[in-house]
Amino acid sequence: MDFITGVKPEKTIKVEEMKSMVGKTVKINGAIHTIRNMGEVAFVILRKSSGLVQCVYEEGKTKFDLKDLKEESAIEVEGIIVEEERAPYGLEIRMEKIIVLSEPADVLPLAINKWKMNTSLETKLSLRPIALRNIRERAKFKIQEGIVRGFRDYLISQDFTEVRTPKITAKGAEGGSNIFKLDYFGKKAVLAQSPQFYKQTMVGVYDRVFEVGPVFRAEKHNTTRHLNEYSSMDFEMGYIDSFEDIMAMETGFLQYMAGLLKQEYSKELSLLEITLPEIDKIPQVRFDKAKELVSEKYNRKIRNPYDLEPEEELLIGRYFKEEYNSDFVFVTHYPSKKRPFYAMDDPVDKRFTLSFDLLFKGMEITTGGQRIHNYQMLLDKLEARGMSTEGMEHYLMIFQYGMPPHGGLGIGLERLTMRLLEEQNVRETTLFPRDLSRLEP
Amino acid sequence: MDFITGVKPEKTIKVEEMKSMVGKTVKINGAIHTIRNMGEVAFVILRKSSGLVQCVYEEGKTKFDLKDLKEESAIEVEGIIVEEERAPYGLEIRMEKIIVLSEPADVLPLAINKWKMNTSLETKLSLRPIALRNIRERAKFKIQEGIVRGFRDYLISQDFTEVRTPKITAKGAEGGSNIFKLDYFGKKAVLAQSPQFYKQTMVGVYDRVFEVGPVFRAEKHNTTRHLNEYSSMDFEMGYIDSFEDIMAMETGFLQYMAGLLKQEYSKELSLLEITLPEIDKIPQVRFDKAKELVSEKYNRKIRNPYDLEPEEELLIGRYFKEEYNSDFVFVTHYPSKKRPFYAMDDPVDKRFTLSFDLLFKGMEITTGGQRIHNYQMLLDKLEARGMSTEGMEHYLMIFQYGMPPHGGLGIGLERLTMRLLEEQNVRETTLFPRDLSRLEP
Repeated sequence: MDFITGVKPEKTIKVEEMKSMVGKTVKINGAIHTIRNMGEVAFVILRKSSGLVQCVYEEGKTKFDLKDLKEESAIEVEGIIVEEERAPYGLEIRMEKIIVLSEPADVLPLAINKWKMNTSLETKLSLRPIALRNIRERAKFKIQEGIVRGFRDYLISQDFTEVRTPKITAKGAEGGSNIFKLDYFGKKAVLAQSPQFYKQTMVGVYDRVFEVGPVFRAEKHNTTRHLNEYSSMDFEMGYIDSFEDIMAMETGFLQYMAGLLKQEYSKELSLLEITLPEIDKIPQVRFDKAKELVSEKYNRKIRNPYDLEPEEELLIGRYFKEEYNSDFVFVTHYPSKKRPFYAMDDPVDKRFTLSFDLLFKGMEITTGGQRIHNYQMLLDKLEARGMSTEGMEHYLMIFQYGMPPHGGLGIGLERLTMRLLEEQNVRETTLFPRDLSRLEP
Repeated sequence: MDFITGVKPEKTIKVEEMKSMVGKTVKINGAIHTIRNMGEVAFVILRKSSGLVQCVYEEGKTKFDLKDLKEESAIEVEGIIVEEERAPYGLEIRMEKIIVLSEPADVLPLAINKWKMNTSLETKLSLRPIALRNIRERAKFKIQEGIVRGFRDYLISQDFTEVRTPKITAKGAEGGSNIFKLDYFGKKAVLAQSPQFYKQTMVGVYDRVFEVGPVFRAEKHNTTRHLNEYSSMDFEMGYIDSFEDIMAMETGFLQYMAGLLKQEYSKELSLLEITLPEIDKIPQVRFDKAKELVSEKYNRKIRNPYDLEPEEELLIGRYFKEEYNSDFVFVTHYPSKKRPFYAMDDPVDKRFTLSFDLLFKGMEITTGGQRIHNYQMLLDKLEARGMSTEGMEHYLMIFQYGMPPHGGLGIGLERLTMRLLEEQNVRETTLFPRDLSRLEP
């Protein structure tokens, strides 16, 4: 009987191992990113997940024909590592033998091996499966991985429990018409707009929970910041003293995330020339106060005291950058009208809620706040809004049988990435974006 | 201007901090799990995310009326920690003051504070939002968190990159009729049955990738092991020498997972009386050979040499337990007919594939294998099966422009949890199961 005992040592080396193996003959594999033929010498640049490796072909010395190599072939190289200061990491491999593991059928329709692909977003998205092979493109999503790791690792260190809640549900948490509908074995079902009801439910179980998962919004917006499917980083915490506890937890996450990116994703950050923002303290300002400040400073008339226009959002971002040198600002106490029924109204002035948005460089990347935890208060608010409790029985159950004071938030992962990387379109920081016209790839 | 600077020290203590604070007056919060009134003394058991805490009410000494307390109220207790060997962790809190943070409106319809809830699965699922508050119920999903953490942490240590791929897509990866359909702004869309096409695409970008996310199957099975939405732990790796590399990686994950559970989830394991399986080596056996072995040992006639019946699966599990004392067995070389078009056929005998299932205690918890990486080979196989390439342009593109040899797998999280916890129904290890009749809660 044969047994599998676990992962065996690899016969090929990683980029990180090269430095300690100068002068040795090694095997290394990768995709051929570029071939630069200089006549008697040719540079074959291998693309590996952790970087590029310069391999040198010398006519007469290397035991194969350069014509056997094609860009985007996967190969295994055998050769000697030598120091060469003009090569990446100051090292190159003088090739002796190769094995071609696989070959493409056609030549690439896009110069993915250029440092910056000189092409439109439209083209990049149409050719996404291969455009992502570009070094800068893939670096963006490596950083996105780091953001999610930061979120999870930080929250686990803060005694949160990770949960997984269903995406096919019977009714939308926020209501409204922006819901994808489907047939579920003859029943009407919808795709979850958020894990709101479920994460609140799980606060009754674990006190503090989080989830990173897809959410679906059938919004007919065609803007640079809307997606119809995106990744939401959600948490919800019980036993809060005020909704400031939620903002404090988010600030803690952002600080931790920046530390993790600095430590483990510095290669990608420098590749994209990104400077991380300062996040030692984030100003907080009331919604109505923020509107005033911006109105005064930028001579802008307040048209609607209960709504925030996109331009106002931008100006609030600008104000806090100029006045406090902060890329972030918590805008608090949003009008009750603009928040869902489960938002806790401010007992001091019920036209406003104990809630907030976090703006990052003038764009909303988070909505959060304290929730109503009292059963009767929730029923009263539903009634006051003329909403039916139909389909909400399981949600209302948790309040009927007791819930601690709690609140939470949702962070749009692609938007946070977009702002961090200073991209101008959220599609740039979404692997395979879904928008009004894009269902593929 | 007010600033948020990060998480402040909490004024209440955690269960883990109690031991070092004997004799001190502390504050602690939680939900009232049970009240046991003994007359002059009462025990108020607080439920916190990390365990139960015994609080003692002494008539005349404690400065509030016991009648103020209700089960499932959220409270903050102030009191002295004293040693008491009959209490959980050998410690209890003599209450002095309390603050009631919130109260339930009604008495629980289910005795969630019983050690084992003496009720049907049907009732537990109908009352899921509160049934999960039971200590044993919630321990299951804490362990499930640990399994997912193990998967991610191990794969990141093995140079995998985490990706997030869309769940609304234009066409199902595996084809067939078991697909949920929806309208996407006037276009026909489906919910992803697996991230198959996308994870293969991302191998061309990062060499090794993984994703943990929801998958959707509109199967009309009503069994103890099928769900219509479940969590799939997927990985895909390039530059493999054979499909054994994939089995080796999975074995490595299972070993790592067991270590993590032992180290960080021992409380939940002992609470559920779970002994982790031995995973130092996993036997591998060919599909046809496995059928033979079982047929011989258990006197069972082979009806169809190209299919595995559920009973055969169980018997294969039993065989390897009896003969090799292994809870796991890799069954390899599944018939080509039974595998999707992208499976790599065995060059030695094309009726079979370079693929495998992992059985855990007689149940399939993983399907994996090597994939075709050659463009022409893939086109030929599609043609031989009479399949159209329509809607697959973006998938086929990756092969046209070059892909390394690669393969991967998908692990059903709820099934793995079910087998690990020796549950008899996969709904027991799914927070909010979706099946033929269940769309809520």
